[in-house]
Amino acid sequence: MKKHNFSAGPSILPQEVIKKAAEAVLNFNESGLSLIEISHRSAPFVAVMDKARNLALELMGLENKGYSAIFLQGGASLQFLMIPYNLLKVDGKAAYLDTGTWSSAAIKESKYVGNTEVIASSKDKGYNYIPKNYNIPTDADYFHCTSNNTIYGTQIKEFPTTNIPVVCDMSSDIFSRAIDFSQFDLIYAGAQKNMGPAGTTLVVVKDELLGKTGRTIPSMLDYQIQIAKESMYNTPSVFAVYTSMLTLEWLKNFGGVAAIEKINNAKAKLIYDEIDSNPNFIGYAAQEDRSFMNVTFNLADDTKKDQFDALWKAAGIEGLKGHRSVGGYRASIYNALPLESVQVLVDVMKQL
Amino acid sequence: MKKHNFSAGPSILPQEVIKKAAEAVLNFNESGLSLIEISHRSAPFVAVMDKARNLALELMGLENKGYSAIFLQGGASLQFLMIPYNLLKVDGKAAYLDTGTWSSAAIKESKYVGNTEVIASSKDKGYNYIPKNYNIPTDADYFHCTSNNTIYGTQIKEFPTTNIPVVCDMSSDIFSRAIDFSQFDLIYAGAQKNMGPAGTTLVVVKDELLGKTGRTIPSMLDYQIQIAKESMYNTPSVFAVYTSMLTLEWLKNFGGVAAIEKINNAKAKLIYDEIDSNPNFIGYAAQEDRSFMNVTFNLADDTKKDQFDALWKAAGIEGLKGHRSVGGYRASIYNALPLESVQVLVDVMKQL
Repeated sequence: MKKHNFSAGPSILPQEVIKKAAEAVLNFNESGLSLIEISHRSAPFVAVMDKARNLALELMGLENKGYSAIFLQGGASLQFLMIPYNLLKVDGKAAYLDTGTWSSAAIKESKYVGNTEVIASSKDKGYNYIPKNYNIPTDADYFHCTSNNTIYGTQIKEFPTTNIPVVCDMSSDIFSRAIDFSQFDLIYAGAQKNMGPAGTTLVVVKDELLGKTGRTIPSMLDYQIQIAKESMYNTPSVFAVYTSMLTLEWLKNFGGVAAIEKINNAKAKLIYDEIDSNPNFIGYAAQEDRSFMNVTFNLADDTKKDQFDALWKAAGIEGLKGHRSVGGYRASIYNALPLESVQVLVDVMKQL
Repeated sequence: MKKHNFSAGPSILPQEVIKKAAEAVLNFNESGLSLIEISHRSAPFVAVMDKARNLALELMGLENKGYSAIFLQGGASLQFLMIPYNLLKVDGKAAYLDTGTWSSAAIKESKYVGNTEVIASSKDKGYNYIPKNYNIPTDADYFHCTSNNTIYGTQIKEFPTTNIPVVCDMSSDIFSRAIDFSQFDLIYAGAQKNMGPAGTTLVVVKDELLGKTGRTIPSMLDYQIQIAKESMYNTPSVFAVYTSMLTLEWLKNFGGVAAIEKINNAKAKLIYDEIDSNPNFIGYAAQEDRSFMNVTFNLADDTKKDQFDALWKAAGIEGLKGHRSVGGYRASIYNALPLESVQVLVDVMKQL
């Protein structure tokens, strides 16, 4: 039976990417050797890394605009630490928007490094909305926000304008919509949603931002070292970078973020329309802040749980269980999930 | 033509491991989904992580001896930082043995964290030997050494006895020889030589060693957090952990480290005998400190370079070029490299 993979991450990737990745594990570029047993400093792999970095910039429209793209290890969680190390001045402060679990984790690590101010939070309502009309202090070294909140199913639709650098964790909605990426000074994302398999993290940063904290930074955590070494300060996560390159290539051939956004909008409309019109379901997130990547909802009547679970499992649907901290259901509808899979889920919802 | 892969890392893996890894990318455990698109918190992947951790302890004979095994990201290079963060007391000191590039990099990061003493070094002779008869200060928090030096082709044959904790970077010879692993308090290794693909790092640490520095540690760099979360504090490097599990399983079925050591000894003897008896070649490392993983050598007459290079390339040999900092040649003969490949190289050497 065909599977419909609504996993929140690691999550569905394009079938052609998966096939090419498996082929490269067996025989990379017809070399007779596996992708995973060649030197990361060999010309063919250096070309992969360069292509992945360039595609990331190209898809964001950030080529030749003073940004560098690097692929690191440690997930967004290590970025939570690297960002203040690299951007928070010794006597400065950082301003954070708290929109959920991942923002909170980022705030915790920033506090480890230096003075950190939480300027707004939606914790009061279980993070089911995005705070608005907050003031960003003009004397902070940077403003940090999380563009999409996987757990709660909320998403920032309009980013604040400010004169200080804007840092954004886009782990769960990067490359999903056409926005002006140049409004950000640093964008980062764990690969395992819209970009590739777990094991690598993309960081796109404006070069002029770096080297200004007055802080000594450990080598592995220093963006300037990682940029100077072109993501090869130490052995990179070869398979994850290669597969990310394949996914970025797939997206480019698809027409880029503007083309995928149209499909993403159609998928989101299909499922949210069903949630709003079907009395069996209640959306978790505030309507205007609904995520177009992670759709969170609950049953109006919990006694129908077994019946609903049996229905979607019978339809080949996987990964629909909500995060343990929210409960209910979560349909993650990332770039690679076809509209057809959302239709299967909506048909199941109609059956309840 | 059959390839003989002497790469220094990422390096050759068992063919059956590569085949199984590629299969899992297409269809993991007959689930109809790829290994790289399922949740890392799903039961099948949690089982993979647990198995990898248990196999690592089992192959070292460290089960039920107070050690924890975790798979992290960031390579040995991030461990260079994590080790002093977790083991170096605020007012304490660390003692390091300097045997080359990787030791030096570890020393640099330790100095960032706290008081660090280099107790012996072989830098005076281009790191071509292992220092001996040095004193390990009894008041240091730990002693750090690198068991095998990939670049210079040296290897510690006998580890010093001391009353302070011993920390060892075994990135390039882990699981290659039967030693008493319980003489170490912390062992770490990037996967990409004897264990698996690049992208994950094994850390095996005695639990009682941790939580004693008086230091606040960033979450991602805290071994106690990583152990408590069973290597799932954040999304792990799924493919690299799975493939490492397959390699450890392969090694166990092979008979474990004692069985592979016999083959490794035979491979090393074959090539070192040729270096010693063939006047065309000069070994780089001091005889008693020769690595059984990375065999470094030079031509006696550099004018024969083109002739020798043409010969080994024609034989299907890959990855024989020495590291840029040493020059000459380096034959990496890790666990998965068959004796047959060493024989092909030796036959080529005889032809010169």
